[in-house]
Amino acid sequence: MKRFEHSRTIPIYFQGAGKVADYIPALAKIDPSKFGVAMATVDGSVFSHGDAATPFSMQSISKVFSLIIASKYVGDEIWTRLGREPSGSSFNSLVQLEFENGIPRNPFINAGAIVVTDILRDCVDSCSPCTSVLQLLRQESGNPTIGVNEEVAESEAATGHRNFALAHFMKSMNNIRNPVDVVLSEYFKQCSIEISCIDLAKAGLLLARHGRDVNGAHYIKPHHAKRIQAIMMTCGTYDAAGEIAYSIGLPCKSGVGGGMLAVFPRVGCVAVWGPGLDAKGNTVAGVEFLRLLTKRSQFSVF
Amino acid sequence: MKRFEHSRTIPIYFQGAGKVADYIPALAKIDPSKFGVAMATVDGSVFSHGDAATPFSMQSISKVFSLIIASKYVGDEIWTRLGREPSGSSFNSLVQLEFENGIPRNPFINAGAIVVTDILRDCVDSCSPCTSVLQLLRQESGNPTIGVNEEVAESEAATGHRNFALAHFMKSMNNIRNPVDVVLSEYFKQCSIEISCIDLAKAGLLLARHGRDVNGAHYIKPHHAKRIQAIMMTCGTYDAAGEIAYSIGLPCKSGVGGGMLAVFPRVGCVAVWGPGLDAKGNTVAGVEFLRLLTKRSQFSVF
Amino acid sequence: MKRFEHSRTIPIYFQGAGKVADYIPALAKIDPSKFGVAMATVDGSVFSHGDAATPFSMQSISKVFSLIIASKYVGDEIWTRLGREPSGSSFNSLVQLEFENGIPRNPFINAGAIVVTDILRDCVDSCSPCTSVLQLLRQESGNPTIGVNEEVAESEAATGHRNFALAHFMKSMNNIRNPVDVVLSEYFKQCSIEISCIDLAKAGLLLARHGRDVNGAHYIKPHHAKRIQAIMMTCGTYDAAGEIAYSIGLPCKSGVGGGMLAVFPRVGCVAVWGPGLDAKGNTVAGVEFLRLLTKRSQFSVF
Amino acid sequence: MKRFEHSRTIPIYFQGAGKVADYIPALAKIDPSKFGVAMATVDGSVFSHGDAATPFSMQSISKVFSLIIASKYVGDEIWTRLGREPSGSSFNSLVQLEFENGIPRNPFINAGAIVVTDILRDCVDSCSPCTSVLQLLRQESGNPTIGVNEEVAESEAATGHRNFALAHFMKSMNNIRNPVDVVLSEYFKQCSIEISCIDLAKAGLLLARHGRDVNGAHYIKPHHAKRIQAIMMTCGTYDAAGEIAYSIGLPCKSGVGGGMLAVFPRVGCVAVWGPGLDAKGNTVAGVEFLRLLTKRSQFSVF
Repeated sequence: MKRFEHSRTIPIYFQGAGKVADYIPALAKIDPSKFGVAMATVDGSVFSHGDAATPFSMQSISKVFSLIIASKYVGDEIWTRLGREPSGSSFNSLVQLEFENGIPRNPFINAGAIVVTDILRDCVDSCSPCTSVLQLLRQESGNPTIGVNEEVAESEAATGHRNFALAHFMKSMNNIRNPVDVVLSEYFKQCSIEISCIDLAKAGLLLARHGRDVNGAHYIKPHHAKRIQAIMMTCGTYDAAGEIAYSIGLPCKSGVGGGMLAVFPRVGCVAVWGPGLDAKGNTVAGVEFLRLLTKRSQFSVF
Repeated sequence: MKRFEHSRTIPIYFQGAGKVADYIPALAKIDPSKFGVAMATVDGSVFSHGDAATPFSMQSISKVFSLIIASKYVGDEIWTRLGREPSGSSFNSLVQLEFENGIPRNPFINAGAIVVTDILRDCVDSCSPCTSVLQLLRQESGNPTIGVNEEVAESEAATGHRNFALAHFMKSMNNIRNPVDVVLSEYFKQCSIEISCIDLAKAGLLLARHGRDVNGAHYIKPHHAKRIQAIMMTCGTYDAAGEIAYSIGLPCKSGVGGGMLAVFPRVGCVAVWGPGLDAKGNTVAGVEFLRLLTKRSQFSVF
Repeated sequence: MKRFEHSRTIPIYFQGAGKVADYIPALAKIDPSKFGVAMATVDGSVFSHGDAATPFSMQSISKVFSLIIASKYVGDEIWTRLGREPSGSSFNSLVQLEFENGIPRNPFINAGAIVVTDILRDCVDSCSPCTSVLQLLRQESGNPTIGVNEEVAESEAATGHRNFALAHFMKSMNNIRNPVDVVLSEYFKQCSIEISCIDLAKAGLLLARHGRDVNGAHYIKPHHAKRIQAIMMTCGTYDAAGEIAYSIGLPCKSGVGGGMLAVFPRVGCVAVWGPGLDAKGNTVAGVEFLRLLTKRSQFSVF
Repeated sequence: MKRFEHSRTIPIYFQGAGKVADYIPALAKIDPSKFGVAMATVDGSVFSHGDAATPFSMQSISKVFSLIIASKYVGDEIWTRLGREPSGSSFNSLVQLEFENGIPRNPFINAGAIVVTDILRDCVDSCSPCTSVLQLLRQESGNPTIGVNEEVAESEAATGHRNFALAHFMKSMNNIRNPVDVVLSEYFKQCSIEISCIDLAKAGLLLARHGRDVNGAHYIKPHHAKRIQAIMMTCGTYDAAGEIAYSIGLPCKSGVGGGMLAVFPRVGCVAVWGPGLDAKGNTVAGVEFLRLLTKRSQFSVF
């Protein structure tokens, strides 16, 4: 892991920069100067820095794990209800949905993740998509205390009119099977899971190991793991996916809680957290950290 | 190069499938059963199969090389006139241009490539963007006979009303500096360059070598070479970039002449040619070949 | 009224043509061969033909009357939350709403009518927008039995996912003040009012009389009455308003129940009902009847 | 004509308000305080005020007359290549054209008027659509000196990249039959015709007289004249047609030269000119004048 060691000396120029997501009260009160980063490698090492042990709100990063579970249970059939193409518009746009008959462009825009939740509702034993995501995160990180921040979940439900609009719209196009209220309740809870950089980096190893879980078993098939990384590369960071691929060159997934998960294929995962967001909703400090890390380590998939 | 050797035994199931581009007479008369593939590696080997020595029309693949030259002369300033994000709509759409004030989403949609041509017109010595692309291709492939099919170029000019619309529209938004006629004449000629799979794979090595040219000199900076590959990954295959990233997992650029260039970072390049296109404008046989090649070789960037 | 007398001999060529709205079971079972027409004049005459006394579902025609009431109570302030321009897209499109920040283009698309209902909820005494519409219709027609078909209202609520999407979307843009469920419940009830051609033509006289009600009192100001007719002319028949202005030349408002109300300014009103709809959602027989009536009577506003 | 007499005492509050169109140098240098108005009645009277005898640039008002001529020669067949619906977007938008396959929404947006010019090119004797418009205007006004301002026409051609984009786009969709350069040259000349309020009001009487020309002959059929007025009502003032119908209630057509033509069906025409434009491209003083005129005279079609 030598190639990453100097990462610990990267100056965090942008710590505290950006604007904390303020549409949810519980998110708005986070200290913007927080900064944490953790790397977990496929050979079992963990490096960390700063607030790496502090749980933060996963938000959209949870979409990676619900997609992993859907890939396990449903396989390629999920693509009859979802596209795999970048959206070319903002993460909660209704326009694309309308032009494309209720089929979300990919599983990482809100509409797509809501469809994934609807799919999971019909295939996981507990009937609770959120519980299945929690179980996976706990198992892979070895931390059984990972949980949902109920205050955030309720806050999201109370203010999530845009998500209700998306879900009802897809319901009108027959692409949501369960009641809208049930699906969104699970979706909001899943987004409100809190996890630390250390645990997130460990959980992400499932992808770096091409689908093998922490016990060495094939949780999902290798080609599914690779393909989820491809979607992270092309669609993982809202409308900045091209820019992130250009400047970082790794499969990434960000969340408005300020977290970002980056996969170094076959090597490891980096999770970074800085609550300040740029105009496109990505963590300013996290993007800058990953940009410098990949530049100095000369690691990128290209 | 052992890992690729079995590629020579991949059955070409889809040879002749798809529909030859018919909007240009000179392209429509190509024999759809043609199929060629060549791999060039950074250590100097070349493997080839089928019609790999037959020149075909580069079409949009030429956009990779005009972007390389613009990166050399203008560097990151080109991004003041161009985006780096996937378009989420078809390659010659006017809608995105209108919503985003005449700034094309990326250099691989037609509007973006026309802007690159306009940029080159002001910085290459000959004032001929097409000539500069030709020079680069001849130098990198070692084949001085690579040239423009003038019949195709004239045919494109005569039928290219959509491209005239795009260029005039950007001119109205002040994102084209030279006269529309001059820029498009160069653009149509550049698209009409004919090159074989063998020569194309060799020329593409510039990217696999992270910017070093055939003589070992730094033609462009390593980070520019990496970033062009990132754009190929996210935007290189029209509205199928997500799908191709998902199924092939390599930076690719296709053209409606039926060609496709794929970069195996740090390893080599594969150029494949089959004139039959799918509904999104990508070579059916070429995509299928690359899908099987990367599946069997287990090579992908992820 | 001589100029309209020959209308009674207009052959109803298109009776039974078109397709009955089938997205609501209660509407789908209507006999498509029904046809009724009634004219009420400002001097007190009523002419009728066919099924003119049979109540049918008002659907979007109710939007005229909720707009009348909102004009009475709120006046021109309603235009801070609503536009007056044709939409250029279908009646329940989300695209326009998104581009224009949650401000519906006009009060006759669904989104606009939902905003009107939200406005009425805050200004009518009963707090029930639907009740206020019922009261107005009963007063103007002199028929106290006009009521809501509760089965239709429930059916609309159960299947109205698109309207829920519109309302939640506008709520997310702060253009709905009351709870979405409350507003839509009123909206669905209002759309489910059943009225006959005779009663509808009488109620419409409020506009032909430039705002005076059946008792001669100024229910709304003359310029409001004129302006509501202008909106009916430009926006009253979904995406066919230009076509209807062109072929009929009168302010009209249609509903998917197969009804259509046309105002002959200063002269009277015609209400026509034929359940079969054309592709744009307007009654086939009704449009054809009005086209022939205005052609033969040479009456149009132009 | 008593009902209009007090119009001569309407204070011109907004004279000089608004912003003169500046994208064409020859238009930008017009004195913004100019103001003229003329009324011509079907019984032969002419009233005028201010700069009513000063020629100004017709710009889009010329579209009314090319549509009249196309109606004469081609009749309802023009609607196979043009719609009659309001556009819901700005007058030179490409978006609608793309979604609707190159069929402009109506003859008064630029794309639609260019199609009308293309149609006229194939049916008028001189092969010059502009000449045919000139002839009609001269005949109806009795003023043989009406002509084209060639400086304006050349200026429009030199800067009309957006119109070139529209025309090439429609050519690519097969909705322009003649060469783009030829059609646009005629279109730019037609827009550059200069006419005074007095002559414009007289020429507009053709519509108020339901198609009869100055000699009493049926130049076009009555129903065509009525229908052109319907299109003026729903589409005549760019994206403000609903607003103008609401506030003025007459069929109108405006131009960025600051002119506006309003038809009082069966009564007469008013032409008004004030070079200052509002944000939507309509003359500020002219709209205000017509608003007050119709309010005080209580004349509107509703």
